[in-house]
Amino acid sequence: MGKSEGPRRPVRRDAGRARGATVAAAVLACTLEELASAGLEGMSLERIARRAEVNKTSIYRRWPTRGALVAAALEGVLDGLAAAPPDTGSLRGDLLALLGAVASLLQAPVGLAVARAALSAQAAPEVAALAGRKLREGAKDPLRALVARAKQRGEWRAGADGVLLVNGLIGALLHRALLEHAPLSPRWRTALVEQALLGVLRPAGVRR
Amino acid sequence: MGKSEGPRRPVRRDAGRARGATVAAAVLACTLEELASAGLEGMSLERIARRAEVNKTSIYRRWPTRGALVAAALEGVLDGLAAAPPDTGSLRGDLLALLGAVASLLQAPVGLAVARAALSAQAAPEVAALAGRKLREGAKDPLRALVARAKQRGEWRAGADGVLLVNGLIGALLHRALLEHAPLSPRWRTALVEQALLGVLRPAGVRR
Repeated sequence: MGKSEGPRRPVRRDAGRARGATVAAAVLACTLEELASAGLEGMSLERIARRAEVNKTSIYRRWPTRGALVAAALEGVLDGLAAAPPDTGSLRGDLLALLGAVASLLQAPVGLAVARAALSAQAAPEVAALAGRKLREGAKDPLRALVARAKQRGEWRAGADGVLLVNGLIGALLHRALLEHAPLSPRWRTALVEQALLGVLRPAGVRR
Repeated sequence: MGKSEGPRRPVRRDAGRARGATVAAAVLACTLEELASAGLEGMSLERIARRAEVNKTSIYRRWPTRGALVAAALEGVLDGLAAAPPDTGSLRGDLLALLGAVASLLQAPVGLAVARAALSAQAAPEVAALAGRKLREGAKDPLRALVARAKQRGEWRAGADGVLLVNGLIGALLHRALLEHAPLSPRWRTALVEQALLGVLRPAGVRR
């Protein structure tokens, strides 16, 4: 930055800031690519610097640890997940849209690497802390909106819990993608949502 | 082994086998301890050898890669999970017993490390392959028994899917323990099971 940070040179300062932001964005994009191809443990700062065409030291200056760099790169991805799901007109449709977005993420190499990094707290505490915070807090508002719409439509069972619902749905996706290594097909996702809506217990009084 | 492997010396061969099995069990137990304290990426073969009081080379001879060693150590833990859940007399009770066992595992350092290792396929393909296989195949029979009992009691909704149910429940536990870093309290587990049983949709015709 140096000279361009002088208080009397607003035009060059803005240019410097813009350049800094572009470089940071490039470094974070290359970090995600490296994470996807090498994983959290295998990633190399040297390769990231080479891809982003910057010095390793300028990465270190801004993000002093590998965990801090990965956490910064993931912030945008996790924010995207917390975006409000569309209003499709039914609880079933809203949940399918939500799961479709998460499944797309988990089926892309970057998203799969993100999920693995977020789950491996021992390897990178900054990453785990960020993921935990984003998931606990960031997803609250969109989920509240989804549940509020379902209540307005008269679809929501009294006593049902939106957080438990979404934990179970996303947990099932993680289980299937990361432990079973099975595909998250639309058909499987639909069956998952149907069962979360209806439960597994035979309704009282129904005998077949 | 050497001499004691000779075909004419059955007594000493058995003694050699027994000693070999004891040593292997000690190495695998020390591997689990090391996994719990250092994680999959930080674990050191040297520390394992020291704890188990064997040479590193004798570990390498039997388990040529770190992944093979960890997979062997996890085999017993994962088999324990696939054990038949008790018949408590109700679907609710059977599911609570199942989740209690998984929660105990995830709340112990070894179990948490096992879950993280099983989820990080990139770090150790042998471990991920083993976990996937055990979870897909090993859990089938106990789950089938649980569902069969629920059907006999008339508790099971026609069309409900036992695999989806358990994936959602265990996935929710993984989500909460590994991503949210929140406790898997009995109260939370009970709410999770209740909701899986009843679903979130208001039953048709019910207006409150």
